[in-house]
Amino acid sequence: MAGSWTPDGFILDLDGTVYAGSRPIDGAAETIGYLRSRGKRVVFLSNRGNISRRMCRERLAAMGIPCEAEDIILTSSVVARYLREHEPDARVWVLGEQGLRDELALHGVRFAVRPQDADRLVVTLHETLTYAELNDAFRAVRAGARIIATNRDKTFPGEDGESIDVGAVLAALEHATGVAADVVVGKPSPAMARAALDRLGLPPERCLIVGDSPGSDIALGKRAGIRTALVLSGSVTREEAEAMAPAERPDWMLDSLADLRRLLEEMER
Amino acid sequence: MAGSWTPDGFILDLDGTVYAGSRPIDGAAETIGYLRSRGKRVVFLSNRGNISRRMCRERLAAMGIPCEAEDIILTSSVVARYLREHEPDARVWVLGEQGLRDELALHGVRFAVRPQDADRLVVTLHETLTYAELNDAFRAVRAGARIIATNRDKTFPGEDGESIDVGAVLAALEHATGVAADVVVGKPSPAMARAALDRLGLPPERCLIVGDSPGSDIALGKRAGIRTALVLSGSVTREEAEAMAPAERPDWMLDSLADLRRLLEEMER
Repeated sequence: MAGSWTPDGFILDLDGTVYAGSRPIDGAAETIGYLRSRGKRVVFLSNRGNISRRMCRERLAAMGIPCEAEDIILTSSVVARYLREHEPDARVWVLGEQGLRDELALHGVRFAVRPQDADRLVVTLHETLTYAELNDAFRAVRAGARIIATNRDKTFPGEDGESIDVGAVLAALEHATGVAADVVVGKPSPAMARAALDRLGLPPERCLIVGDSPGSDIALGKRAGIRTALVLSGSVTREEAEAMAPAERPDWMLDSLADLRRLLEEMER
Repeated sequence: MAGSWTPDGFILDLDGTVYAGSRPIDGAAETIGYLRSRGKRVVFLSNRGNISRRMCRERLAAMGIPCEAEDIILTSSVVARYLREHEPDARVWVLGEQGLRDELALHGVRFAVRPQDADRLVVTLHETLTYAELNDAFRAVRAGARIIATNRDKTFPGEDGESIDVGAVLAALEHATGVAADVVVGKPSPAMARAALDRLGLPPERCLIVGDSPGSDIALGKRAGIRTALVLSGSVTREEAEAMAPAERPDWMLDSLADLRRLLEEMER
């Protein structure tokens, strides 16, 4: 499809592509090891905002996928960078977990003491979300805080099946307050593409993004000029993928990350 | 406004009208005592679906407002009656608390063992909602359960301020699944008006509904032909109330339930 082109840099989605919950996708570690043995550069790009890079690095290491923290680009760090660069004085209320707070603190973001004192509400997924936390977030926005969200995905492939994601939590807050999130940093936003390409040190046309989400991973590639491979190990089935509009279709379709080696070998043939 | 008309039956909203959280509205008990001493009939009508009538009756008694369980009409009992009458074979998954389960069980409603086995998801507010519960509800709907909700209010006046209500939880589920609730029993639905009038044993034109919510209480009155009084002790301010479209305005406006005695005396003058 892309002639004799082969990628030098790989941008790999995590949930549904490298792992599903705490379980690695079969062959993921071997494939990533193979890419590295061929001198390819690899970064990981996830819309998850409830974990820190340190936590994510430990999880990958336990799956036999060693990497540096800087090879992992999460919305938690991208949202922290956004706030530091664009709104350094904002006092922030967090609807999220310790992983997000750690990343924000690491970047010098200021925290509000009470919801009603916040200039910004940062929203991400967390699987221990409670009504009391949702209500605090609601009160922050009612009192004037604007909403910044790590992503707007509706669902993600969790450990025990497809699970509800940030998009639904945002819908709840937006419905109750009438205020829409004005910044969403996650894929397919250009902020995520830029962070990945910066780390790879490569132009978009020399990279391939591999992910399971048409709306996040494939859309990011289309917008940023990065070629795309959709894996069927996560959010969508082959039937759903084949029903996509031509403009939204990936350049390649793979059953899982384990097939990436074969694809690369075919490209080089 | 209504000439020499005086009501014989009173339909009183609870949250924001009789109490705010666990705190009674000043003068509520005295006013209700006065109505009864004048031979007026009183029922309580609430969109709350997380409590049973028994729990609500105990709360009112503690505030000096004794009543029978049948004088309390909650969405939990109306949703239970709806299911028993219209869908007696449905297996139900509950996003709610024990109070709702108690009412459903009392009406002989069947429960599903797993979310994916449910024909119906019943949604109500509960202040101990967790992500895991929200996710189970999401999975019930993804597997085919249709949504019945106790109400669609965006917020309610809670103990420590305005709080997020069922509407927001529904928005989250509807956003994640693409499936809208097909039955919402709460005010302003005719099912609630009918339940209140049945208990009072009076036609709508002999009753007055008193509540703090234009969208729930006043709208129910307008639809059912029941005269309306808006109290300003809950969700809306006088400025907001005066900005309402003429067709949506209440017949009377009171600072709180405590002013109902004065209104009745004026009517009888």
